[in-house]
Amino acid sequence: MIKVGIIGATGYGGRETIRILLGHPQVRIVLLAADPSFTGQRIDQVYPEFRSRIDLPCLDVDEAKFAKECDVVFLATPDGLAIKFAPALLAGGAKVIDYAADFRFQDVKLYEQHYPIKHTQPDLLKDAVYGLPEFNAHRIAQTSLVANPGCFPTAVVLGAAPLFKNALIEDNFIIANCLTGASGAGRKALLPMILPELAANVQPYKVASHRHQPEMAEVLQAITSSAASVCFIPQLIPVERGIIATITARLAKPISLEDLVDIYNGIYSQAPFVRIGAAGELPELKQVLGSNFCDINLALDNESRTVIVFSCIDNLVKGLAGQAVQNMNIMFDLPQTTGLL
Amino acid sequence: MIKVGIIGATGYGGRETIRILLGHPQVRIVLLAADPSFTGQRIDQVYPEFRSRIDLPCLDVDEAKFAKECDVVFLATPDGLAIKFAPALLAGGAKVIDYAADFRFQDVKLYEQHYPIKHTQPDLLKDAVYGLPEFNAHRIAQTSLVANPGCFPTAVVLGAAPLFKNALIEDNFIIANCLTGASGAGRKALLPMILPELAANVQPYKVASHRHQPEMAEVLQAITSSAASVCFIPQLIPVERGIIATITARLAKPISLEDLVDIYNGIYSQAPFVRIGAAGELPELKQVLGSNFCDINLALDNESRTVIVFSCIDNLVKGLAGQAVQNMNIMFDLPQTTGLL
Amino acid sequence: MIKVGIIGATGYGGRETIRILLGHPQVRIVLLAADPSFTGQRIDQVYPEFRSRIDLPCLDVDEAKFAKECDVVFLATPDGLAIKFAPALLAGGAKVIDYAADFRFQDVKLYEQHYPIKHTQPDLLKDAVYGLPEFNAHRIAQTSLVANPGCFPTAVVLGAAPLFKNALIEDNFIIANCLTGASGAGRKALLPMILPELAANVQPYKVASHRHQPEMAEVLQAITSSAASVCFIPQLIPVERGIIATITARLAKPISLEDLVDIYNGIYSQAPFVRIGAAGELPELKQVLGSNFCDINLALDNESRTVIVFSCIDNLVKGLAGQAVQNMNIMFDLPQTTGLL
Amino acid sequence: MIKVGIIGATGYGGRETIRILLGHPQVRIVLLAADPSFTGQRIDQVYPEFRSRIDLPCLDVDEAKFAKECDVVFLATPDGLAIKFAPALLAGGAKVIDYAADFRFQDVKLYEQHYPIKHTQPDLLKDAVYGLPEFNAHRIAQTSLVANPGCFPTAVVLGAAPLFKNALIEDNFIIANCLTGASGAGRKALLPMILPELAANVQPYKVASHRHQPEMAEVLQAITSSAASVCFIPQLIPVERGIIATITARLAKPISLEDLVDIYNGIYSQAPFVRIGAAGELPELKQVLGSNFCDINLALDNESRTVIVFSCIDNLVKGLAGQAVQNMNIMFDLPQTTGLL
Repeated sequence: MIKVGIIGATGYGGRETIRILLGHPQVRIVLLAADPSFTGQRIDQVYPEFRSRIDLPCLDVDEAKFAKECDVVFLATPDGLAIKFAPALLAGGAKVIDYAADFRFQDVKLYEQHYPIKHTQPDLLKDAVYGLPEFNAHRIAQTSLVANPGCFPTAVVLGAAPLFKNALIEDNFIIANCLTGASGAGRKALLPMILPELAANVQPYKVASHRHQPEMAEVLQAITSSAASVCFIPQLIPVERGIIATITARLAKPISLEDLVDIYNGIYSQAPFVRIGAAGELPELKQVLGSNFCDINLALDNESRTVIVFSCIDNLVKGLAGQAVQNMNIMFDLPQTTGLL
Repeated sequence: MIKVGIIGATGYGGRETIRILLGHPQVRIVLLAADPSFTGQRIDQVYPEFRSRIDLPCLDVDEAKFAKECDVVFLATPDGLAIKFAPALLAGGAKVIDYAADFRFQDVKLYEQHYPIKHTQPDLLKDAVYGLPEFNAHRIAQTSLVANPGCFPTAVVLGAAPLFKNALIEDNFIIANCLTGASGAGRKALLPMILPELAANVQPYKVASHRHQPEMAEVLQAITSSAASVCFIPQLIPVERGIIATITARLAKPISLEDLVDIYNGIYSQAPFVRIGAAGELPELKQVLGSNFCDINLALDNESRTVIVFSCIDNLVKGLAGQAVQNMNIMFDLPQTTGLL
Repeated sequence: MIKVGIIGATGYGGRETIRILLGHPQVRIVLLAADPSFTGQRIDQVYPEFRSRIDLPCLDVDEAKFAKECDVVFLATPDGLAIKFAPALLAGGAKVIDYAADFRFQDVKLYEQHYPIKHTQPDLLKDAVYGLPEFNAHRIAQTSLVANPGCFPTAVVLGAAPLFKNALIEDNFIIANCLTGASGAGRKALLPMILPELAANVQPYKVASHRHQPEMAEVLQAITSSAASVCFIPQLIPVERGIIATITARLAKPISLEDLVDIYNGIYSQAPFVRIGAAGELPELKQVLGSNFCDINLALDNESRTVIVFSCIDNLVKGLAGQAVQNMNIMFDLPQTTGLL
Repeated sequence: MIKVGIIGATGYGGRETIRILLGHPQVRIVLLAADPSFTGQRIDQVYPEFRSRIDLPCLDVDEAKFAKECDVVFLATPDGLAIKFAPALLAGGAKVIDYAADFRFQDVKLYEQHYPIKHTQPDLLKDAVYGLPEFNAHRIAQTSLVANPGCFPTAVVLGAAPLFKNALIEDNFIIANCLTGASGAGRKALLPMILPELAANVQPYKVASHRHQPEMAEVLQAITSSAASVCFIPQLIPVERGIIATITARLAKPISLEDLVDIYNGIYSQAPFVRIGAAGELPELKQVLGSNFCDINLALDNESRTVIVFSCIDNLVKGLAGQAVQNMNIMFDLPQTTGLL
C-alpha cells in the first residue's frame, strides 16, 4: 500500500483527493494537514460526507513527520507553499506532487513575472516534471517532484496540441474561450462567488491577462516543438465544477472533419483518459463531471476555414486531484487508471 | 415629488429599493449613503445595471443633511444602526422606515434578548409602527417611524393570521417550515453562501432558534388577539430570492377547503398585495418573484386533520424593499400600489 | 462474478445502476434492455459519460434470454412492467429487483387503489420482500424477488421509524415535508421540469395526495408494529438530485436531545449506510449526494414539544439504484457495502 | 391609448410582452390568442403571476377581429405563422410586429434555405423593416410591418457592427461564441431542457450551422455596407435567460482601447438602450437581465492583435419582447424608452 499524506486537506483540491483516494485499492491515507484554523478538527467534521469513511485529524504541517510516514505527499496548497515544503519532503525521501504553480515553469523569471512570489528553490526546477501524463508520462515515471498542471492549461493544451503538432493552423494562433465552474477559485468566501451574485450570471474575468495563459503557451511549445500564441478568455458560469474550452483557429489548409478526428485519435491512442468524439458529435460538459476524462470534440466551419475544438474536463478531477492521482500511479508504476475508473 | 434618501444603498435591500423607486411616479431619489468602504463611488459603478438610470454617489451618513433634503429616509442598514440614525432624522423632520429589527418589538427586553445590542432609544418605540400594511395600515398612515417587518415574519404572519383570528387550530400552534433564497443573508462574503457550497444543496439552519420566531409570535398575538406558538424551521435553498413558507397545524374542528378559502378571502379583501389561491390550486414560488405580492394557497389533509398553508413572497420585495415602499405610500397618502405594479 | 441484466437501462435509474455497478468488484453487466425507441443504440451513445467504460447495446426485452444469461435482473422500469416481466425471469432462475411499486404492497387492493394498474400477479406478493435492508435484511437474503422502496418512503421511514418504535410521539402522527430534486420524475420531457420553469422556483405538488404516502404508512406499521399516520407534503426544488425530509411530530413526553440521539444510534447500530448526526449538528443535503448514505439529524423545539428529524438521501442512490445494489449484495451473501463505498 | 393584441400569448415571448406592457403608460392590452390547447383559459390561470393584473381569456386566432379591435398586433408565434396571419391584419388596418423569421430576410431564397417553410407572401417583404432600432429607426417609424430581430443577431450585430463599419478587422471576419439561457428554446417540453439534463451542464449545439448565422451576416452587411463573415458558436448554459456574446476578431491595424471605446460611444450616442463600458471594465450578464439594455464591453489582447467584444442582452427583452415594444414605440411616435425603463 502507498502511504499518502495530503497537505491542504480542507480545500476543494484536498477534499477531491481524499474522495478519489478512498476508492483507490493501493493507497492508504495516513496524514492530513491544513491551515492552522483547522488544527485538531477531524476531516469528517469539516466535510460530513466523509463520516464513517475517514476520521483523520487536520495537523499542522510538519515536513519531517510527513516525509517519514508517507511515500508521497500531495501539496494541495496555494501558490508559494510548495517552495517552502517540498525541499524537506524530498530530502526526507517522500515523493511530492504540487497542485500549485511553483514548479510548473522551467524559467524562474516567467514564474516571478506572473506570480507575486520570490522563487527560492530554482535548483529544484531541473528535477520537476510538468505532470501532463498524455505527453510526459515517461519523465513523470522517473521523477520525485511533479508539478500538477493548471486546470485551464490541462483542457486547452490537450485540446489544442494536435493542431500545433501537425501544423494545421494559421500563425500558430488559437483563441481559447473557457467557461469554468466556481470551484476553480477555491474554497474561499469571495463576494463574486456567493450565490446571489453568481446564480443566473456569467462573469468574464482577467480577459487576456490570466496567468494560466503563459503556462499554456510554454507547455504547448514544449510538447509540440512549435511556436504557440494563445488568446485566453476565461468566463465564470454558474456551475460548481467543470471547464469547457472552446478553442478556435483558422486552418492553414483545408482538411476534412474525418481526417481531423483521425489525427486526434492517433495522437491520443495511448491516453486512457482522453476520448475523441466522432465526427459530427458535440459534447456536453456533464459527461466528464466527477471523472478524470478529458473529452474532445471537433467541428469545422468550412465557410470561414475555422476549426473549433471543444475540450471538457472536471476542473477538480482531470484539472486537479484526478490528474494528481494519475501522476502518482505513474510514479509508483501502477496502471494510470488505477482507482480512477 | 417625494424626496427620498437611502442609507445602506449598496446592500441588497438598498439596491432593490432603488430598483423599485426608479419606477415610482411620485418619487425622486436625492441622497444615498453607504458603508464608508463605498464612499465616493457612484451607485452605478457598484451596480452596473443602474448605468444611465441613476448616478448618485454613495455618501457618508450625515443625519442632518438627510433630514434637511429628504422627506423620507429608508434605513436599509443592519440591526443597531437605526437606533443611532433615527432620532436626528425624525427630529429634523424626515419620516423614517427602518429595515432592521430595532423598532419591531414593543418590548425592549425581547429585542435585547434576541439581538446582541443595547437599545438606547426605548422612548421611540411608542411612536414606531410595525409596517405590515395588511393589518396596520391605519396606524402606519399616522406615524413618522415605521419598523419594516422581517422577511420570514411577513410570509408566516400573513399566511397564518386567519388561522389564529378565527380560532381554527389546536393549541394555537403552527409549524412554519420556511425555504429561503440566499439573498436573505445580505450581500456578504460568507463561506456557506458561495456557489460551490450552496449549489445543489439545502441547508437547514438555526432550527427552532432563529430570532424571527419571537417576532412572528409577538406579531401574531398583537394582530389576532390570540395566543400564538410557532415552531420555526428555516432552510436555505439554492435560489437567489424568494421565501415559501409551509405552515401546518391541526384543525380544531373540521372545515371544508372552500370555507377556508372564503375565510382567507374575507380577511384579505382590502389587501391589494395578498392573493388567495382557489381551492385545489397550489403555488409555485416563481409567481411572486420580482413583485410585491404575497400569494397564499391552502390545502387540507382530512385524514390527519392537518391544514397546510403555503405563503410565498419575494424576500427582497414584499419581504423588504417593496413592503417599505408600500409603507411609504401609506405614510404619504398615496394608493398602496403606486409604483409597485 | 455476478452476471447482471438491467431492463430500463436508459432511464435515470438504469444509468445510476450502471454507474454504480461499473465500480462493483463482483459484478459483470451482461445485458441491457430499454424502451424500443433505443433498440440497437449503445448505452455509451445514449450517455456519453460511459464511453470507453461500457458499450453494450440496448436490446428489446426478452425475458427468457435475460433469465438464462443473468444471475439477477434489475427492473428499472415504470410501474406495471415488473408484473409483466418478473414471472418469466423468476421461473427462469434469475433473481429480480424491481424499482417500481408493483411488489411493494402486501395488499393488492392498496396497490390498485393508488396505481391505475390491474395487478395480475398477486401470488408473487407472498415471496416479494420490501427491500429496506435496515429492517428487512434477513428476509431479503432469502428471497428472489425484492421490491425496492420508493425514494420518499426510504427517507421518511428511516428518519421516522425510531419515533414510532419507541412510542415517542403523540397520536403516532408525523408531518413529512420533503424537498426533492427533479430527477425523481425520471428522464422525461415534462414541461414543469424544463429549466426555465424550475430554475429559481419551488413547486409543491400532490400535497397530501401523493401515492408514496400509503407506502410510508404501511411500511412504518409493518416494521414498527405501531399505528402510523403520515401527512406527506412533497415539494420540488431546483436541484438535480437529493431528498431532504423534514419530519415533525409532537413529543408524547419530554426527552433530551442526547437521549434521542442515543435511541437512533441504537436502532441503526448495525446499519452501515445510516449515519446519525451528533446532538446540535444540522445536515446539508450535499453530504449524501452520490452516495448510498441516509444521514439523519435531530433537533428539539422544547417550547412547543416538537421533535424535528432531518433525513437526507440521494434519491437516485439510497432512494433507488444504490439501495438496489445493497439489496443485491444481501441476496448474494456479500457484505452490504460492497461496491457502494 | 394604443390598443394591443398578442397572438401567441402563452409562450415566453407572449408572457414577457404582457409583463412589459402592463407597465406601459400608453397601452391597453385588449385581445390575446394562443394555441388551441389554451382556448378559453384565462392568461392568469396559465401564468399565476398575472393574477389580479390581467384576466383576459386566450382566444383562437381571428385575424379580422384582431385587426378591427387592435392598433397593433404582436405575433409572438413560431416561424411560418406570420406569413399566414399578417396579410389580413395589415389589410384590416393593424400594424404588425412579428417575433419570428418570416419577414427578416429580404431574399426569400435565403429564408427558404434555412427554414423548412414555403414563403407565400414575398410581396410583403418590400414593406417589412428589420426591427433593430439602433440602425433602422427611421424606416421602422414609417412601416406597418416590423420583423423583430432574432435574439443572437441582436447581441452579435450590436456588438460587432462598429468593427465592420470602421473597417477595424482583418478579413471582415468575426467569431461569435454565444452563451444563452434555456428560455431561448421557448416554452416546450424538450428533453435536453429538463433540469436534470441541463443543471450543472453546458451544451454547444448547431455549431457553425445555426440559422441565426445567415441573419447576422445579412444584417451586418446591410447596415455597415461591408462584407461580413461570421463563425457562430451557440452554447446553452444552465440559466433561464440572457445571452452573452463573445465576439473576437484580429485587428487590421493597432488601435488603443480608449480609441475603440470612443468609436463605439460615437456610433451609439443616440441609442438609449446601448451602453458601452469604460476601458478596463468587464460586464456580467446579470446587469442586463429583465431590462432592454444591450451592454457592450471591449478588451484587447495586444500580443495577438485580438479585439474582444462582449455583448450582453436579456434574450426575452432586448432579444424579443422589449425590442418589440421599442419598435412599437417608434411606430407610434413615442419616445423609444416609454414603458421600458
